[in-house]
Amino acid sequence: MWERLWVDVHLATDAGGTGQPGGDYFGAIPNGAIATAQGRIAWVGRQADLPDAPQQLATEVISCNGYWMTAGLVDPHTHLVFGGDRSEEFAERLQGVSYQDIARRGGGILSTVRATREASEETLLHLALKRARRLVANGVTTLEIKSGYGLTLEDELKQLRVARAISRHLPLRVHTTFLGAHALPPEFSGRQGDYVTHLCDTILPTVAEAGLADSVDAFCETIAFQPFEVERIFEAAQRWNLPLRLHADQMSDLGGGYLAARWKALSADHVEYVSEASVRAMGEAGTVAMLLPGAFYFVRERQLPPIALFREHGVAMGLATDCNPGTSPILSPTGVMNMACTLFRLTPGEALAGHTHIAAKALGLSEKIGRLQCGMAADMAIWDVSGPHELSYWIGGVVPVERIFGGVPDQGIV
Amino acid sequence: MWERLWVDVHLATDAGGTGQPGGDYFGAIPNGAIATAQGRIAWVGRQADLPDAPQQLATEVISCNGYWMTAGLVDPHTHLVFGGDRSEEFAERLQGVSYQDIARRGGGILSTVRATREASEETLLHLALKRARRLVANGVTTLEIKSGYGLTLEDELKQLRVARAISRHLPLRVHTTFLGAHALPPEFSGRQGDYVTHLCDTILPTVAEAGLADSVDAFCETIAFQPFEVERIFEAAQRWNLPLRLHADQMSDLGGGYLAARWKALSADHVEYVSEASVRAMGEAGTVAMLLPGAFYFVRERQLPPIALFREHGVAMGLATDCNPGTSPILSPTGVMNMACTLFRLTPGEALAGHTHIAAKALGLSEKIGRLQCGMAADMAIWDVSGPHELSYWIGGVVPVERIFGGVPDQGIV
Repeated sequence: MWERLWVDVHLATDAGGTGQPGGDYFGAIPNGAIATAQGRIAWVGRQADLPDAPQQLATEVISCNGYWMTAGLVDPHTHLVFGGDRSEEFAERLQGVSYQDIARRGGGILSTVRATREASEETLLHLALKRARRLVANGVTTLEIKSGYGLTLEDELKQLRVARAISRHLPLRVHTTFLGAHALPPEFSGRQGDYVTHLCDTILPTVAEAGLADSVDAFCETIAFQPFEVERIFEAAQRWNLPLRLHADQMSDLGGGYLAARWKALSADHVEYVSEASVRAMGEAGTVAMLLPGAFYFVRERQLPPIALFREHGVAMGLATDCNPGTSPILSPTGVMNMACTLFRLTPGEALAGHTHIAAKALGLSEKIGRLQCGMAADMAIWDVSGPHELSYWIGGVVPVERIFGGVPDQGIV
Repeated sequence: MWERLWVDVHLATDAGGTGQPGGDYFGAIPNGAIATAQGRIAWVGRQADLPDAPQQLATEVISCNGYWMTAGLVDPHTHLVFGGDRSEEFAERLQGVSYQDIARRGGGILSTVRATREASEETLLHLALKRARRLVANGVTTLEIKSGYGLTLEDELKQLRVARAISRHLPLRVHTTFLGAHALPPEFSGRQGDYVTHLCDTILPTVAEAGLADSVDAFCETIAFQPFEVERIFEAAQRWNLPLRLHADQMSDLGGGYLAARWKALSADHVEYVSEASVRAMGEAGTVAMLLPGAFYFVRERQLPPIALFREHGVAMGLATDCNPGTSPILSPTGVMNMACTLFRLTPGEALAGHTHIAAKALGLSEKIGRLQCGMAADMAIWDVSGPHELSYWIGGVVPVERIFGGVPDQGIV
């Protein structure tokens, strides 16, 4: 007997798709039913095809009033754990204070590094849980969180421990990413090579040995780390069998997409300036193009990521909030889906896939989450919408009626 | 004795401001206290200045944990009551179907008109309440709603009755606006003058006599109604002593801002293409520039409203969601505040004023709502933020901890 059975529900399974570029595929099963047992999806199909009367099949039968169900949303790129507050800096910039003046006063990313280092583990957890609760309320069931505001061994470990702790406080799956190569820490000023050595020889191995990282990322950009430095980090990560991802080609084309593909990285993220050669390589390697329209919007970027090329070369497009205090203070995945459609011209089908099974693929979890499919984790969200396309249509207009994690409905947990 | 007294709270009163353009004024009272009685604010000030111990002063004392309180948000321009669903059309456009093809199939605004006419009053109310609940959850206490999807006497009355009914179902103040001049109804095709006559001689007087409109609006644009037609409508409205507002200069400069000012309209809305002469006239007349960054964002407009000119000529800038199914499916006032800052470069102080007391001014309610000030309606919102500027910083990251309408906290009402 199943534990729970949802009926009177339309399913956007996202399963069995042809992946037709530009199409609007949801793998829809209208008038469906879905059952869970032991945290997994045990049955999916048309309600009419259920093998018996619902009450005979499951301990609990839940009628969904004709709502739509999707897989729980996956947010595969965030910097959710950070200290300090840069909303004041946001206000100052709008009052005409220049970036230079703010940097001179110690603002920008280094102010977040300073505040994160100064904050206790308890404070960081308190702040991160507040943000994670918003994501949960907005339908997220799996969340990636990067380090990269510590930039010392102790502070990177601290950030990653806090990230791990979140899943002990909320019904949420957390994937952690070590991003020691996020910025050059001030104490290594003028000695970037030495920092990379320290990172590869000391921080990364300690993080890996502690089991605190599920993957490794780096910020490849003229103002951050150069391709040859990224390769040193990737090499170190591979010694620990850690999957790779890369902040690539956000402000200029450094061949980051190509680099990510050559190293079989799970994803290349941002990719506004990625070249066609890189896109082709990403398609061949199966590297996901992780689009971050929230950051694009907030920094008022003009260069659009090459959506047509991604489609042409069969590069799967993921979506994430990129939640971070400097360039993407956003905690709404459906808001991101709207931006992906409005600003990047993705279809609502591509947008939902981007925040579900493509996002899962970018976390190496495509066999486990991201689709309504037998055997997958029973992470779901129920929405009062006319169809799954409506999730990309509203800003602030839709939140889940119910969220289910591991087969257990939230109802008042959050 | 007061009914309720909130303590341990920082207040963004928005009162007593100098209105310095580009500044970031919140009328802040850190460590404040605020009391209510009979639906109004009875006392505002520093907690240290309370005349007695809190428990001696009020029946109920509420500690706010150091949160910030603002006036309840005001959404002064929405088309919240409509039938049908245009999220499908949104999806089709993103799959490459042209506007022309959609219009040929009866899509666009006329599909909303058709669906609104076909819908029963109960259906319209059900749909509108769902949207209004989202606004309430996002901190709104006063809401303007326009007609304009009926375009027959019966259907305009129906829309306005539904708008009025909302405030009987939710703790919310509703201001209704008659917008018969929203689009030319298909049965008057080729006879726009006749429709304006019908509107002025029949629909508007009936609406006014029924007490269903608090103000009158028109869509002044090359593709809608011309300035001389708008003037006929304004004249009719003035015979019924109804305040005026105008959809002005959204896609081209038809002198709509000037027209609004000359008729002492409460607001000129959109105003991306407004001329300096019009701005000057608006400043002299006290007409609010109602900025609608949600629509700007959704239609991917490039022409920015002239913020510097509004500041220079002392034109107050209001903000609204413009919630409508075609060009602004948005139900998040703080999301709109973020867009106003990010896209239009308003300061967070201007943005909050835009959604509180300037919005109130645009509804002719500036003596009654929009500020934390003695005698004003006790409509408030409490936020877990570091300062009121943080409300403009997040997208999807902040919702009120509590909302208070007429002195009564929601706690579970919505």
